[in-house]
Amino acid sequence: MNKIDALSVNTIRVLSADAIQKAKSGHPGLPLGAAPMAYELWTRHMNHNPADPDWPNRDRFILSGGHGSMLLYSLLHLFGYGGLSMDDIKDFRQLGSVTPGHPEYGITVGVEATTGPLGAGMGMAVGMAMAEAHLAAVFNKENYPIVDHYTYVLGGDGCMMEGISSEAFSLAGTLGLSKLIVLYDSNRISIEGSTDLAFTEDVTKRMESFGFQTLTVEDGNDLEAIGAAIEEAKADTQRPSFITVRTEIGYGCPAKQGKASAHGEPLGEENVAALKENLRWPCAEAFQVPEEVYAHFARLSEEKAETEAAWKVMFAAYCQEYPDMEALWDQYHDENQGLQFKNDEEFWADSGKPEATRSLSGRILNYMAGKMPNLIGGSADLAPSNKTVMAGKGDFSRETPEGCNIHFGVRELAMTAVGNGLMLHGGLRPFVATFFVFSDYMKPMARMSALMNLPLTYVLTHDSIGVGEDGPTHEPVEQLAMLRSIPNFRVFRPCDSTETAAAWYSAVTSRYTPTALVLSRQNLPTVEGTGRGALKGGYIISDCEGTPEVILIATGSEVSLALEAAKILTAEGRKIRVVSMPCMELFEEQTDEYKESVLPRSVTRRVVVEAAGSFGWGSYTGLDGACVTMEGFGASGPAARLFEHFGFTVDHVVETVKAL
Amino acid sequence: MNKIDALSVNTIRVLSADAIQKAKSGHPGLPLGAAPMAYELWTRHMNHNPADPDWPNRDRFILSGGHGSMLLYSLLHLFGYGGLSMDDIKDFRQLGSVTPGHPEYGITVGVEATTGPLGAGMGMAVGMAMAEAHLAAVFNKENYPIVDHYTYVLGGDGCMMEGISSEAFSLAGTLGLSKLIVLYDSNRISIEGSTDLAFTEDVTKRMESFGFQTLTVEDGNDLEAIGAAIEEAKADTQRPSFITVRTEIGYGCPAKQGKASAHGEPLGEENVAALKENLRWPCAEAFQVPEEVYAHFARLSEEKAETEAAWKVMFAAYCQEYPDMEALWDQYHDENQGLQFKNDEEFWADSGKPEATRSLSGRILNYMAGKMPNLIGGSADLAPSNKTVMAGKGDFSRETPEGCNIHFGVRELAMTAVGNGLMLHGGLRPFVATFFVFSDYMKPMARMSALMNLPLTYVLTHDSIGVGEDGPTHEPVEQLAMLRSIPNFRVFRPCDSTETAAAWYSAVTSRYTPTALVLSRQNLPTVEGTGRGALKGGYIISDCEGTPEVILIATGSEVSLALEAAKILTAEGRKIRVVSMPCMELFEEQTDEYKESVLPRSVTRRVVVEAAGSFGWGSYTGLDGACVTMEGFGASGPAARLFEHFGFTVDHVVETVKAL
Repeated sequence: MNKIDALSVNTIRVLSADAIQKAKSGHPGLPLGAAPMAYELWTRHMNHNPADPDWPNRDRFILSGGHGSMLLYSLLHLFGYGGLSMDDIKDFRQLGSVTPGHPEYGITVGVEATTGPLGAGMGMAVGMAMAEAHLAAVFNKENYPIVDHYTYVLGGDGCMMEGISSEAFSLAGTLGLSKLIVLYDSNRISIEGSTDLAFTEDVTKRMESFGFQTLTVEDGNDLEAIGAAIEEAKADTQRPSFITVRTEIGYGCPAKQGKASAHGEPLGEENVAALKENLRWPCAEAFQVPEEVYAHFARLSEEKAETEAAWKVMFAAYCQEYPDMEALWDQYHDENQGLQFKNDEEFWADSGKPEATRSLSGRILNYMAGKMPNLIGGSADLAPSNKTVMAGKGDFSRETPEGCNIHFGVRELAMTAVGNGLMLHGGLRPFVATFFVFSDYMKPMARMSALMNLPLTYVLTHDSIGVGEDGPTHEPVEQLAMLRSIPNFRVFRPCDSTETAAAWYSAVTSRYTPTALVLSRQNLPTVEGTGRGALKGGYIISDCEGTPEVILIATGSEVSLALEAAKILTAEGRKIRVVSMPCMELFEEQTDEYKESVLPRSVTRRVVVEAAGSFGWGSYTGLDGACVTMEGFGASGPAARLFEHFGFTVDHVVETVKAL
Repeated sequence: MNKIDALSVNTIRVLSADAIQKAKSGHPGLPLGAAPMAYELWTRHMNHNPADPDWPNRDRFILSGGHGSMLLYSLLHLFGYGGLSMDDIKDFRQLGSVTPGHPEYGITVGVEATTGPLGAGMGMAVGMAMAEAHLAAVFNKENYPIVDHYTYVLGGDGCMMEGISSEAFSLAGTLGLSKLIVLYDSNRISIEGSTDLAFTEDVTKRMESFGFQTLTVEDGNDLEAIGAAIEEAKADTQRPSFITVRTEIGYGCPAKQGKASAHGEPLGEENVAALKENLRWPCAEAFQVPEEVYAHFARLSEEKAETEAAWKVMFAAYCQEYPDMEALWDQYHDENQGLQFKNDEEFWADSGKPEATRSLSGRILNYMAGKMPNLIGGSADLAPSNKTVMAGKGDFSRETPEGCNIHFGVRELAMTAVGNGLMLHGGLRPFVATFFVFSDYMKPMARMSALMNLPLTYVLTHDSIGVGEDGPTHEPVEQLAMLRSIPNFRVFRPCDSTETAAAWYSAVTSRYTPTALVLSRQNLPTVEGTGRGALKGGYIISDCEGTPEVILIATGSEVSLALEAAKILTAEGRKIRVVSMPCMELFEEQTDEYKESVLPRSVTRRVVVEAAGSFGWGSYTGLDGACVTMEGFGASGPAARLFEHFGFTVDHVVETVKAL
């Protein structure tokens, strides 16, 4: 390693150790061990421009082992990203800083994805590499490789143990994502001790089984070997690559290196001093960076900027030669495409006959696909049931990456991470789909959509005991509560074609919030009174004169039930209002006046009808209301029998109202 | 294949096809393709006694591809399990039948585990094999292999695509679970079409990488080859085995075999007829079984019974020679062991000083471990943080399966399935542990604990923004709501040593309900007024004279905050009650009188204080109450700063009360 390289690598190490020490909290093990590979990658192999972190053709880098955040912050600081200052580094892990404990997308310029939950970064990286492959196939022309970048992801043993990485890598291998390059920081240490305790598998062989090129760097401090491996990875144009880099956790700190204790706590003042001495660190003060290191990175940043400049020249020529493609490019990158449907009568057309909301959704999706070319997505092997096949849009495959229908395989968790990755990449409007009950598998990554403010769309069909014969393992009961409880996440459970259109409209026009469409397997009757009010989340679809005695609140398949019950009660002279509440979260966002107009505070007799658990409805029913909901799990039997058995009948709703 | 074998295999096929046809719903693809391997296994290799399905040393069989339930029901019927009658078969998928759409533990005699969510069975099988290895190490003596059985699991491509199976198999390989035998029904068809669409990996190689012996049967109809492979699998005493059996989905049905359409819908009357003709089926009527087949299975059942009889003789001799071991055996199989702590003062001892509930939990766990020898469990690589290490109880490893501390690795989902498997096996009282935020990864299998009525204990530490610097990816906000919304699942969030003891007591005495202990990272102040009332889920810990004006309801770390606020308000002359609500679900189970005594209906001014989302509290606060809870995600910073920043201060609670 030459002098400036060594000094730079050690700068990353020392900055990390100093920041963690000052914060009295953090994870020095990864930055100390993985500094050389990250340095080699960022300086010699990665195309990026610190002055323009949004350059669409930049190489992507994800730190899947997000606990090693100081590795990333050190690099961002040295490269001058977004002016990430030394004060920011000193503010590591402090409230309101741009250097939080784990990297957070949207908080720190240059951070491509929020990471922390292990394995998540692997899935998102696969999504980004898929986005690249797809956009390259759509946009590139001879001599104009305008989309042509790599996706790098760095993670450790924990990331490799999580099942999500197997799911994601199996898909990556199937799709031959040759521009995905995984750096495996193999230090053989986990929190509980040696990885031998729980992880003796042959990781390289596993990656080969998925169809990856596998490479190994025996010495994690050997920049040349690391660089050679990265170049070999790039050279393989058929397979994604997996580079095992053998490192020592906490490298350089004599008392800690190679030990589990290096992972997740500050080294301690004494050990920071020992680290610096051991590395022959030239600076006396904490948070000091040798001038030549700053100068070195400044030069590198200038070089990096040139790469983008050259790309811009090419892009300009491309636009000149292919003006249609330029227009298409703009369309792909227009986040307001969904607004075109606002007054599109075909989009909002009333189906006028009993249909399952999943079928209605499928028709709307196909309509949109004809007008939003960057709509891309698929299902975890349930597309025919989820009705998510976009006719004529092709399959995304190794041979046809321009296809828009993604076959995710039975991998709900990785699918969701991939969806996040597709979204993070930019240029695409992705959706993912499965049975609603299997949103359980998606949960960790659904939370990440919400946390990263990504408007990913979730198509979740077979939404209740309406599933019928498949029984309780396939019947969602608590999944509505699970998703509704996630901050910044919208759950739509539409009751007919109008509300299904509203759900999709809300989803594809959302800028910062993911949306789940929760759709019925079974046909639903047509519903009178639905309309654009659905976009307010909750609205009156049937009313009485004057102040109602009772308000029925229902969603999805239970709206028609509530209406029927209301009819009977009205005929008996009662004053009943029916509120359809397809999206609780949107309703909560409305003005107090609007909410009061729909659910007047003075009307305390409220009955919720929803074929799911009652959890979460108490803030609507209060202490005086009632719920016609599910008490436990469902059962196996014909759907109609189940609805009856579990009390979703007009009679039962009427009785419940009368009992108030 | 000899005649009776062929006829028997075809009986399974035809019964499956008939039942699915009659139900107009179901999955014929798997039973038709996998009938030979299941028949060979159940008749020639598996030790089981249809007359005693609870025989502790029976071989376990899990149908991980639960959609193929008719395969299992056909076998159970033919072997005469629990009198599963032809009428039961005819009732396939009907409400209230013992033959639901997917196999359900506790509903059908002989079903070892509920399956349906793909991959789950793989994880549970690993848990069962671990239970066997552990109990064998604890109990077996020379010449007395009283615990000595295999665990078989059968699944298809979907099970192999799910990440949970990679997690579970990697662990199984590490632990060298040589009595785990996986039958992979490899038909290369998924719902969306050929597995080439999404799954081109080399599955055999992947399994080798995990440390499995791998075997392949090229023809899924070749009973001899299947049998030879099973015997080879048994012969390997160092590694678990993975047998790939190449099958054709929907075998025997000319119009359907090898096609995706065979998977999940009835064949249709015409195709059922064609199937029967093609298989030269001798019976004219649906649901007819040739007499010789019944006779054949009756003979087999008698043989099977002899195996248990021989075991019983051995077990009796063992008990005579080792009376201490007999006593220990009884202790292991006593589900009421936890009751010994009811009046154990040491168990309930007040810590008397500020401590984190995770530390208190660790101490109680260790105390219990000394008195409940069958307590077994561990963490997903966070044991030092979760405080779940049981001192002196040894590590469960390949070399020392008698150890009680399991190192699960960073595999939360498989860990939970394994926990369910340990519990299903019988003889053990397992727990699993991780950071609370990562209960997200556990959710699909936590639901399965609840659905199967398994009292698995979940130790979930680092329960709020009290996590501090690690930031929002590590700070649970909506996880309380997620778990509370699961039917038959108890969530305890204790505030001090007494409530932590109550939580553990409730968990280890629970018979049919899983319990999560949600514990703080940070020290909590001692709390006055706590007591055994915690076992009622919610109780008054501080009260005023007469009817309170306001009731404060709090859990865990916020109880002391509520008490302090109450003190100030009381000093100002207000009548305040404080209710600690460590377990909402237990509170709901109390009598109406008790609930009214704690939360009188007439007192509508109620304030909930909990450092989590408010979702789900509305049924307590009603329309007049208020919540001091989290609005969005957390942030990275020192915990004390975060509590202040997010409004968890005495002042804010006092203001909130006054604002009512």
